[in-house]
Order: sequence, then structure tokens, then C-alpha cells
Amino acid sequence: MGLKPRQFFGGKKVKSRLFDQTYKQLESFEDSKKTVGDSSIQQLKETFGSSSVPSGGLPPNDYIHWLFESVLPDAVRTHQKRFIGHMTSALPDFVSPLSHIISTLNQNVVKLETSQSFSFLERQSLAMLHRLIYEKSDAFYDEHIHKPKSTLGMLVSGGTLANISALWCARNHALGAGSALKSVSQVGLSTALYEHGYKKAILVGSPLMHYSLRKAADLLGLGEDGLVKCPVDSQQKMDVQELRRILDDAEKNQIFIVAIVAIAGATETGTVDPLNDIAKCASEYGIHMHVDAAWGGPLLFSKAHKGLLGGIEKADSVTFDGHKQLYLPMGIGMTLYKDPNKASTIEKNSRYIIRKGSLDLGRRSLEGSRPSMALYLHAGLHIFGAAGYENLIDESIKRTTLFAKLIEIDPDFEVVTNPQMNILTYRFNDQMDQVLTKSSNERLNDINQHIHQHQWQAGKSLISRTTLYFKIQGELKPHTVLRSILANPNTTETDLKAILKEQKQIALDVISSST
Amino acid sequence: MGLKPRQFFGGKKVKSRLFDQTYKQLESFEDSKKTVGDSSIQQLKETFGSSSVPSGGLPPNDYIHWLFESVLPDAVRTHQKRFIGHMTSALPDFVSPLSHIISTLNQNVVKLETSQSFSFLERQSLAMLHRLIYEKSDAFYDEHIHKPKSTLGMLVSGGTLANISALWCARNHALGAGSALKSVSQVGLSTALYEHGYKKAILVGSPLMHYSLRKAADLLGLGEDGLVKCPVDSQQKMDVQELRRILDDAEKNQIFIVAIVAIAGATETGTVDPLNDIAKCASEYGIHMHVDAAWGGPLLFSKAHKGLLGGIEKADSVTFDGHKQLYLPMGIGMTLYKDPNKASTIEKNSRYIIRKGSLDLGRRSLEGSRPSMALYLHAGLHIFGAAGYENLIDESIKRTTLFAKLIEIDPDFEVVTNPQMNILTYRFNDQMDQVLTKSSNERLNDINQHIHQHQWQAGKSLISRTTLYFKIQGELKPHTVLRSILANPNTTETDLKAILKEQKQIALDVISSST
Repeated sequence: MGLKPRQFFGGKKVKSRLFDQTYKQLESFEDSKKTVGDSSIQQLKETFGSSSVPSGGLPPNDYIHWLFESVLPDAVRTHQKRFIGHMTSALPDFVSPLSHIISTLNQNVVKLETSQSFSFLERQSLAMLHRLIYEKSDAFYDEHIHKPKSTLGMLVSGGTLANISALWCARNHALGAGSALKSVSQVGLSTALYEHGYKKAILVGSPLMHYSLRKAADLLGLGEDGLVKCPVDSQQKMDVQELRRILDDAEKNQIFIVAIVAIAGATETGTVDPLNDIAKCASEYGIHMHVDAAWGGPLLFSKAHKGLLGGIEKADSVTFDGHKQLYLPMGIGMTLYKDPNKASTIEKNSRYIIRKGSLDLGRRSLEGSRPSMALYLHAGLHIFGAAGYENLIDESIKRTTLFAKLIEIDPDFEVVTNPQMNILTYRFNDQMDQVLTKSSNERLNDINQHIHQHQWQAGKSLISRTTLYFKIQGELKPHTVLRSILANPNTTETDLKAILKEQKQIALDVISSST
Repeated sequence: MGLKPRQFFGGKKVKSRLFDQTYKQLESFEDSKKTVGDSSIQQLKETFGSSSVPSGGLPPNDYIHWLFESVLPDAVRTHQKRFIGHMTSALPDFVSPLSHIISTLNQNVVKLETSQSFSFLERQSLAMLHRLIYEKSDAFYDEHIHKPKSTLGMLVSGGTLANISALWCARNHALGAGSALKSVSQVGLSTALYEHGYKKAILVGSPLMHYSLRKAADLLGLGEDGLVKCPVDSQQKMDVQELRRILDDAEKNQIFIVAIVAIAGATETGTVDPLNDIAKCASEYGIHMHVDAAWGGPLLFSKAHKGLLGGIEKADSVTFDGHKQLYLPMGIGMTLYKDPNKASTIEKNSRYIIRKGSLDLGRRSLEGSRPSMALYLHAGLHIFGAAGYENLIDESIKRTTLFAKLIEIDPDFEVVTNPQMNILTYRFNDQMDQVLTKSSNERLNDINQHIHQHQWQAGKSLISRTTLYFKIQGELKPHTVLRSILANPNTTETDLKAILKEQKQIALDVISSST
């Protein structure tokens, strides 16, 4: 190898040249009209086929050159305005410069000694989200915002860890804290359940729960059978009568309920569970209520739409996600806790870092060493401000209503679930005047699956697909539907019309080629 | 507010100006001779004291200006060459330009449809680390590197999640897969243990285990009591005779052992457990062996030092960390699995993403949506190459040996634990000619605690401290020791001498002020 590795550290000229090199080329990537490149899976497997670490070593500029030549063409343009299939939008301009700050500083927020001001910045950002949800008094926040023993929230790498963290706290709190019996965190689940007089433990939520709740149930030792699905009403919302029945049964059968999980913005349809009714129920039965608001949480910024989340302030814990409607990059999830002491039951200290009583953020956290992703959140809250987020949310919901209208006036498309927030499912249906039968439904499923696949391959736009269940002749049958998420502020009416036009053309091509 | 939030998206000029603004100022931050700023905790609490999201919104350049004025001065210079107290080093020059690429692309590697080439890049990087450890055949890697059903490794946000992931797989595999009995992932821990004929479940490791193992034991339902500490020998290494006794006892008492956790580079002292002997034992008893090589793993690149890790290739799973001796930024942990099918027992699919049988990385992962941190790893493996990492490791170990010598020739310092890899503990001791008593040890503990604290506050250099236990007059007593980690390639002999000189001066000041 030519360069000694030491030469890769601290070379200002090198860094500056590498920046110039990436800067221009990223601009053209951002201008790209495609959503994805042309390489086949087979080609990609070949490009990334070697399993040996090269011995030599490549100069950084050669490596970056290779990235732009061979890797970036096949990256997905998640920022492209016709990419409306997933919960990823264009990012605001301040994100990349901040990423430069974060990576240069390389703070480790596990501990004050390796992050100092950034530990306080993180606690402040979480306090702001806590206040957005719970609206406690000034005195409350003055007391808890930087108190070592208080945890208003946790910042983790994503919504999945946020949900897991909340339920870990819920489990440990209910089976331990303040009781004369041994705690689950000390003696483990089997012994703790036995000591507390229970046979088993479950979580209750609707069938629309995010799949991270299955991970939580598995990890925490409840098993997927311990994730009990409460039936939903015709609006796909949790049926609170059914919930009460489940809670009563559990009580009779010595089953411990770790938490009721309510959804504020289901991943597939945007549906919100009846939070107020669930909160009333949770409070009566003395059960932890968790709200997964990874998608819907930021609606709290909107005066027009925050009513949809009424009751969220009664939840014991709430999940937020940075990379969704806060318009921040991947890698930021948050859990907020109504009670600042709830998280004490997962606290772990050590001798060489995160000492007891310290301000070290790592004391109460699922993760250990981690970067200061809070800087993005802090920047979003200050640069957009409450009014900026309100505007982004309101515009996004308007765009969704518009898209629903465009679908409704088209005789070959039907809205399947009405827009909830800014999520909308629909499908191509050229036989809307006829009664839907099992076989005509299967034909439509095939066509819509084709639309999704061909549109992705063509690389001009992207909508995702999912499967929802509705009754046909009295039987629940799978309906393949197209799912759109209209968060990207750059998406226009012209884009939406073009997307539908492309989908219709794919459908007609499929129909004509099969006849 | 002045600007409409839409204007924050896609403004090339804005982004370019913000980059210019950050670029120059970060250079001067990097040149800083201090390790930390002068602000008091109280000042920081005030700076970050507000809990309300500002309504208005701040132009991005004003926000960044404020960051440089009010936040960065109190960030920790983890890259500074006299900051040798934690596992954070200077980063190579290519990291920041890559962070720009990662944040601009904003790929979500949970799924092929939102990451495409980056999913393959991640799998390739993990295959390379797998090969570094397990050295299987070309045919093995050709088969598994991109096979949807195979998992050579997982990339997570850090070493803690890597350890948790490995033990989650171990638990689910042993209590489930291939058995006619119900699996723990389905029925939960209590029922699964009962069905498999066990009373409880434990992990076994040495008392030097990282505190993330306590999180793992708690989360997975074993409880901290379920983290059984096997006694160590005089070298602080796991005593395999004692291990066998624990395994025998467990067998007799119907206790299920999830895994034996061996350490390859203890966080406090760098110690490596006897991997070959532990592997032999694990194999005889049919127990999953996990090696936490978060610190020591990259020694495999060094022909001179890889012998220290002999036996690691027999482990069922191994944890690596990117932000330690791979010289990558925070946020990258990895688990490697000897058996590519081990992770199938934690697989979760869903209807709208990560479909069964797909190449989606999210099918087998603790996290959900996440950024392409693998790009840093891929870049490190290609830019440093095996030879570059070898050189970094070898130089770092040389530097540690040098530091140990400087300590030994100084009559007022003593090495407490000999350098293991590049971790060294020592302490100020001005009474080395006298027999250590409980009270003289307490005096030394006070002085060394002062050294750590004052050195941190002075902000010119940083060494961490921890507590180790040694016998005094037959009784185990806490010894406060200074802990140095000599990974930064920019640290010179002059720096090491200056650090010792500063420490001695602090000690003498403390002694003279207390007499």
C-alpha cells in the first residue's frame, strides 16, 4: 500500500478535496429523475461478490470515485418527489451540513465526559417533545429537564427500539418497583410472574400494530403468543368493548398485562385507535398505556389536526420517530414518559462510565455508546419551529386529500381506505360496476401486484403495496392494495397525476398481454 | 416566521452556503488544544433550559452560527491526541465526506426497495468480517454472501445491540428450533422453559463482562440474577475449572444455559478469556458460545497479535464494534454468526415490507428502519485494507508498551494491570516502598480520583478512571486506577510524557494542600 494509515488522520487538504469531490456529484444525484438504477439483482450480487478484505488499501478519492461510478447509480432516490411509497421524504437542506458536524465531533452521548454540551442538548430536545405531548407546567419542566434522576424521554436509533424501550420499562415497573416481591429485572420473568401470582404475561393491541411489537414480545420473553390482538371495529380501530373483555379474562386467569398498545397512525392505513377510551380503560384496570405515534405524533404541531390524537396526553409512554414526519434522517427514535421516574427500573450503572447519580445519559438506555443524533432533532425543532412543522403537516394532509380526489374521479381506480392523516390505500379496479367476487378480486390482486412491481422496475416513481382483509360474500379475503404516503413537500399535483397515468398504463398493458 | 418550510427542501445554494459556513469553523474546532470547554454544568443547564418548541423558526445559518457560538465550545474533543481515556479516537479524513453521502442518500436498509445497492454493500461488509473470523472456504461465501435465507452477520447501532442480538438468537435457537416442543419466540420464556424441562435460564461469563450483558439478561427475561459470574484466575481470565463446575451444577438443577459469554478485550483492562478452553467446554456441553470482541476483534488483522484471539473462530457468535478499533464513527456494531441459519429464529416478516423470502435486511434484525452505516465499514475495509488495520493495531500496541515503560521508570507511578492489547491501568503512588495498607490505599484512591477529576476540568488531556479489586491483608479492596486507551494514531511520546507530568503536578498540589 502506498499511504501509511496514519496519513489518513488529520489531513485537512485531503478532507477538503474529498468534500469537493462528493459535493458536485451528490448534486447531480439529487437532480436525478429516476427512483432507482437499472442494475439487476444479479449484477449487484456480482459487484458486491468478494468476501475477502482487500490487503492493499485504496486511496480515499479512488474509493469515493468508485462509489459514484458503481454504487450510487443503484441507490434509491428516496428524496425524489414521485417516490411516495414509503415513509421517507426529501430531507431539508440543513441535514447534510449537520451530518458533517456530527461526524467531525464524534461525540458519544453515553456519558457526559464524552459529550458534555451534547448531553444537555439531547435532554432539552426530549423535554420539548414531552411538553408537546403532556403540556405540564413550567415548574415541572424546570425541575425535571436536567435532573439526573428524571427521564422525560430517551433517544434511540429508531421507532423499533423506542417501542421496545417503552415496554421494557412498563414490564420492569409493573413487576418490580415498590413491591416487597423480587423484581423481574433481578430474578427474571418466570420467577417474577410466579412471585406476583401470575401464570403468564401479555401485551394487548390491535392487529394493525407495527411488527416491532412482535420483536418486543419475543425479546421480553412474552413470546408472540403473548401479543394479544384485540378485534377492531369497521373503521379498523381498536374495539374498546372487546378490550375490556380481554382485560377481564386476563384478570380471571391470572394473566399479567404488561401494557395496552394503542396506535396513532397505523403503518399501513394511518388509522388512530380511540385513545381517550383506551386511556380510561387502562386507568381503571391500572395498566400501562403505550401509544405508538411513530407516524402520527407530529400532528400535535397542527392546530387543525391535533384533535385526531386526543387522549395521547394520558398515555404512560409515547413513541415518536425522527425520520418520518419530523423530516430528519434515518436513525432517530424517541420514547417519552409521562412519569419521569418510570425508566428507573431499567437503570444500569458501571464502574468506569455511567456512574450512579451522574448526568450520564447511558444510565437509562437500551443502547450504549451512540452518536449525537439529537442534534438533528434539536435543529428541526428550532429551524422549522412549531409553526414550520404545522405547515408541513397541514400541507401534507391537503396533498393526500387531493390525491384521494384524483383517484375517486378516475373510473379505473378506487380508494380502499380513506385518507387517514397522510396515508391512503387504493387500487386499480376496471370493474367497479360489477359485484366483487372471489375470482374477480384475485384478478385485481394480480393486476395491482404487477403495477407495484413494474412501476418500481421502471424507476420513475414508487408506491408501495400491502394486503388488507375485507369480506367478500361473507368471507375475509386478502385485497392487494397500493399504499401512498404523501409526506414529500416537493410532490405536486402534476406528479400525482403522472403516477396514476403510469399505473393505469401498466395495468392496461398487463390486461392486454394476458388476453 | 419568514421562510416557508418548503423552502428548506432542495435549495442547492442554501446547502452550499451552509457547508461553507460549517467547513471553516470545524477546522478550527479540530485544531483546538483543549479537550473540553470552560462552561460549568450550571451554565449548560441554562443554555439548554427551555422546554418549549420555539414557534417561529430560525434560519438554518443562524442556527448553525448559534451552534458554533454556544454549543461546540463545550463539546468534547474526542479526537484530540491527549484524549486517551475512552475508546474514541481521531477519525480518518474520509469519514466526514462519507457522512455527507449517507445523509444525502438517506437510504433505509430495512428493505431492498429503499436501499437497493446499499443492502448488498452491507451484506458484503459483514461477509468480510465473517471471513476474517471464521476463514471458511470460497464456496461457503459464494453460497451465503447474498442468499436470502443466510445471515452471516447483522449490523446494528452499537456493541450493546450486537451483544443483545447474539444472545436473543442463542436463546431462541436453543429453546425452539428443530424441536417438537413449542418455541420461546412463540410461547414465551416461562412456558418454553417448562416445556423443555427447565426451571430457569442463565448466561455465564466473567465478572469483567461489559454492562450491556446485564441489559441483555434483563431484557431477555433472565434477570440480572440470571447473569452468573464465573470466577477468574489471578490474570483476571475466566477460570475454566470453575466454569465446568457451574455447568455441571446447572445440569443437575435443571437450569438452562443460554450462552457462555467470553471476553476478547475487557473494557476495563483489555483482558482476553481463554477462548480455546471455553470453546472446548461449550462444545462438550452443547452450549452457545458468544465472544464479545467489541474492543479486541480487529486484532485479527495483525499477524503479530492475532494469536491473542486464538479460539475465536470456534465461537457461535462474535460482537465487533466499528467505533472502536475499526476507527469508524459512533453508531456501528456488528454480530457475526458461525452458522448462517442461527438467526432464522428471530425472523419477523410483515405484509407491506420485509416480505418472507426477500433480500430485505430487516427480516432478521433487532432494529427496523435504519441508515446505511455500513458504508463507513465498507470504506474502512477498502481504504485501510487489511494491511492498514494491521498497521494501526500494531502501532497502537507499541504506543501502549511505551506508555507502560514511561510509567514504570517514574518512581511516583505504578502499572496496575499490565498492558493487554492497548489498554493499561496505572495509578499515582508516592509510597511504593511501603507496604500497602487499607488506609494508605484509601489515601491513594482519593489522590487518583482527584487526578482524574482535575485533569478533566483543566481540559488539556483526559484519562478515565475505574475501580479494580485486589487483596490487601487478605481482603479484596477497591483500588481506584487511571485507565488509558492508546488508540489515537496522532498521540506521540511527548503527549504521553506531558500527560504524566500534568497528573503528577495535580497529585502534588492535592497532597500539599491537604497537609
